[in-house]
Formats: sequence, structure tokens, C-alpha cells
Amino acid sequence: MDVSERRTELLQVGCELFATRPYDEVWIDDVAKRAGVSRSLLYHYFESKRGFLHAIVEHETTTLREATQPDSDLPPFEQLSASLDSYLRYVQEHPYGYRALFQGAPATDSEVREMIDRNLRLQEERILAALSAGQPPSEQVRMAVHGWLGFVVSVALEWIARPRLTVSEVRVLCVDTLVAALASTDTQG
Amino acid sequence: MDVSERRTELLQVGCELFATRPYDEVWIDDVAKRAGVSRSLLYHYFESKRGFLHAIVEHETTTLREATQPDSDLPPFEQLSASLDSYLRYVQEHPYGYRALFQGAPATDSEVREMIDRNLRLQEERILAALSAGQPPSEQVRMAVHGWLGFVVSVALEWIARPRLTVSEVRVLCVDTLVAALASTDTQG
Repeated sequence: MDVSERRTELLQVGCELFATRPYDEVWIDDVAKRAGVSRSLLYHYFESKRGFLHAIVEHETTTLREATQPDSDLPPFEQLSASLDSYLRYVQEHPYGYRALFQGAPATDSEVREMIDRNLRLQEERILAALSAGQPPSEQVRMAVHGWLGFVVSVALEWIARPRLTVSEVRVLCVDTLVAALASTDTQG
Repeated sequence: MDVSERRTELLQVGCELFATRPYDEVWIDDVAKRAGVSRSLLYHYFESKRGFLHAIVEHETTTLREATQPDSDLPPFEQLSASLDSYLRYVQEHPYGYRALFQGAPATDSEVREMIDRNLRLQEERILAALSAGQPPSEQVRMAVHGWLGFVVSVALEWIARPRLTVSEVRVLCVDTLVAALASTDTQG
């Protein structure tokens, strides 16, 4: 394995641990043992346990962002539906990475929280941009989209824990809910 | 002040700190200084920093649960709307407590995470019980309610950070979104 493959493999082992335990209950020795490498190699790549978690969050947010890049040639709701499909497939394929991001990491330190918040803001802005055609969104619309991202994260985490619905069932539930949340803001606005 | 008032006051000071900083960035010395008490009094009441956070989470989840106790004499959506109104007023009056619960504490340790999860499960069960009239809910309905609680938490946290909408605007947005998420499960189910 070359350096980059080895690094990615270590990040994956780290994801599994940070996804299933709070930060303070993850030990670098444990990561090293599972990955079959020395503790000093881990410190060589990532400097510290905190540096290791930051690298994981960076890697997962980048992968998720790239996987869900919207296709701006499509009409707004088709864009959203296609991105959401990719998002849910990412969740299916990276359950540990996703849980590490949204269940494990956020309260760990301010820097990690900001990385994850930035990622959510970016998704919020993408959706608002697709919906609003250049107009600044109303506060109700902004709140609806913000809340909806919380809906998607909760649904996705629960779906990882109990995968009883299909991708398409989860996608329809999420899209319908956004459409309705936005319709509510029309009535109010 | 008697012991119980003093304890509640310390919990409030703790909320403010745990709401705005990750666990590792909160120091007991800082809490003691802000509350104008000695470090040893804090340890006398709560044993450790972890014990202090547990007491805060316990206190806030209990207050929130009691404040939102549904009135089972009302029809389901009126029950929900009334509970949600109390919930949002709790959020307005306890912004630090709410943020400590849903933004600060969850990733801190397994025990805290379980306390908060239990609280969310309880709210999920209350809503499912009100909706389903004794029938076990379908997986779609369960997911819709679970996701919707994530919607409410995200909206509430954002509303604390930028309080531009009224309680009633936020409540209407939340209720409409739940009604719609449930309607989506009807179409699918």
C-alpha cells in the first residue's frame, strides 16, 4: 500500500471507532491494534488523537459534499431529488463515517463543530440557491430548509440503526416533507 | 438560599457554559468563579465535572418533559400543537439549557447520550401514541415522527441563535411539516 491508501485505511478504522463511541472513549492504541499498525505510525500521520478526528471529519465532509454536488442543469426539485439520492447512497455505503460526523464528532471541540456546521450551511445554501432563483429567501423559507436538514440527518441516523425502508422510500419521505415545509411558508408569508 | 436553590443556581451557571463550549473547554474553576462559590462546594454537590454535566442534563430533560406533558383530553393535533407551544416557550425561556442538551452534551459520553436519546424516544412515543390510537405505527410513520423531532430540534437551535420568527410562526411551520410528513407516509403506505 502507498502512503495515501494507508492513510485512507486508517481513517476508515477511525470512523468505526468514533462512530460508535464518544471521543473520550476512543484510544489511539485501539485504533493502531485494529489497523495492525504501530501507535507511532498513527502519530506520524495525524500528530494527535484530535488531529486524527479532524482528518476523519475533513475526509468525510469532503466525500459527502462531492457525492451530493447538485446538477444545475436540472429543475430545482429534480436537482434536490438526485442529490438526496446520492446522499442516501453515501449514508448506506459509509454508515460509520456518517455516524462519526453527525453523532460522534459535533460536541468534541469547537473546531470540529465548525467544520460540520460549515458543511450543513453549504448544503443549506445550495438548496436555497436552487429554490430561490437569485432572490434572498424569507426567514420562514430559511428556517424550513434549516429544519429539513435536521430532519434528513435524524432520518438517516435512524435508518442506519434500523434499515427497514428502501432508499427510494426514504427519499420520497424527505422530498415530500421539504415540499410541505416550504408550502407552509407560502401560506404564512 | 437553601441547598436546593443553591444547587439549581449552580446548574444554571453550568448550562450557560456547557451550552456555549464543548465539554473539554469547560473548567470547574470557571463555573465556581461565575457562581461565586468555591471549587470544593461544586465537588461537594456534584462529585466531578462529569457528575455536574449529568445533573444538568437530568434537570433539563425533566423540566422539558414536564413542560410538554400532552393533555390527552384534546384531539391528537391539538394535543401536539399545545405541547409544541409549551416546548417553544421552554426553548425561549431556557436557551442555555436547551443548547446544553442538544448541541453541547450529546457526544460527551455514552451515559449522557443515552439520557438525551431516552428523552427523544419518549417524545416520539408520545406523538405516536396520540396519532395511532392503539395501533402499532408503520415504519414510515415512525420514521416521519423521528425525522420530525430532528426538524424541531434544528429549528429551535437556529431560532435561539437568530430569533426572528414569533413562537406562533415557528409552531405553524413545525405542525404543518409534521402533518405533511405523515401525509407522505399515507401515499406510500
